[in-house]
Amino acid sequence: MLKLYYAKGTVALATHITLLECEADFEAIEVDFAANQQRGADYLAINRKGRVPSLVTDHGTLTETPAILVYLAQTYPDQNLALINDPFAFARIQSLNSYLCSTVHVAHAHKSRGARWTDDPNAISAMQARVTQNMTDGFQLIEDEILVGPWAVGEHYCIADPYLFTVTRWAIRDDVDIAQFPKVAEHFSRMQARPATKTAMLSHT
Amino acid sequence: MLKLYYAKGTVALATHITLLECEADFEAIEVDFAANQQRGADYLAINRKGRVPSLVTDHGTLTETPAILVYLAQTYPDQNLALINDPFAFARIQSLNSYLCSTVHVAHAHKSRGARWTDDPNAISAMQARVTQNMTDGFQLIEDEILVGPWAVGEHYCIADPYLFTVTRWAIRDDVDIAQFPKVAEHFSRMQARPATKTAMLSHT
Repeated sequence: MLKLYYAKGTVALATHITLLECEADFEAIEVDFAANQQRGADYLAINRKGRVPSLVTDHGTLTETPAILVYLAQTYPDQNLALINDPFAFARIQSLNSYLCSTVHVAHAHKSRGARWTDDPNAISAMQARVTQNMTDGFQLIEDEILVGPWAVGEHYCIADPYLFTVTRWAIRDDVDIAQFPKVAEHFSRMQARPATKTAMLSHT
Repeated sequence: MLKLYYAKGTVALATHITLLECEADFEAIEVDFAANQQRGADYLAINRKGRVPSLVTDHGTLTETPAILVYLAQTYPDQNLALINDPFAFARIQSLNSYLCSTVHVAHAHKSRGARWTDDPNAISAMQARVTQNMTDGFQLIEDEILVGPWAVGEHYCIADPYLFTVTRWAIRDDVDIAQFPKVAEHFSRMQARPATKTAMLSHT
């Protein structure tokens, strides 16, 4: 059985939703970030990065959301969640996931994880001051250039959808007014209505 | 024919090497970052992110290195460069690529791209002061936990190899002593010896 290590409020939500969409047999184990459990020896033995999600499989442990999401899509192929047999469509999905992980997630992380990049409290405050603008810029690009609608890549729900939903939640918390991005706002509402999202949110709120 | 838009010294090197490994028919077009060409209207019409690489295909334009590399592996399947039919092996490759793009590339970017996250010159200096340590930490984890050797995931050369090579070049420029990481150092030398790497480097140095 798969084991998902997650923490509330984190990117692990995207994997959690996807596991439920796949109707996977899995156990969800909370890592208590408030108690700094992710830096404890027990958790570091599972994932030395000290981050979530970690997905423990029969073959070994996987980290990094874009990799885990494609692994789940391949392991539970019925819903064709990555369109993997259409290389260009798959690449579009991966491109969005990569933009989310390397640009938008990083923009968000400068709000509460600035200590990753400096010890200087003034510098951390300076980074925090830019977060709303950087998240707005990221979502402007998603609205204009990437999000097709009704789902991320068009008519077909895919692994980019729960990831985009997860990062949109952060944007709202980062004071981005998503009403200015009609496709993003509609996507967020549509995601909230899915049973898998509702079930996952019970563990993440 | 594929068109690769690249700039010297950037992550586009990973795609450039991979195109040559695949023996793809492609044209490489340099974007002059020194002249700020990536922010000009002509280039923004190709890639509104104002970054490289961009890969123009018959189906449309792709951005984001992890997505492009898998697209090339699928389009030129002979060398099985992503082990895509082995979901766990593929996930390990994607996990490394995702770590490179979202953590190690980002650590490096705080050296010369700090203006992405703040306008404050003191804060930018504070971020720069941490770059060598953060890059060292990233490569310590790659050495200890990820890099199998002789190639990234073992005996089989894959799309993670040119990506790791590209980021290792940055680590060296960021004053990381890679001699302390024997597997990384050996991988870097091994990559330098490949004909595709040598050819790509002619455009990137």
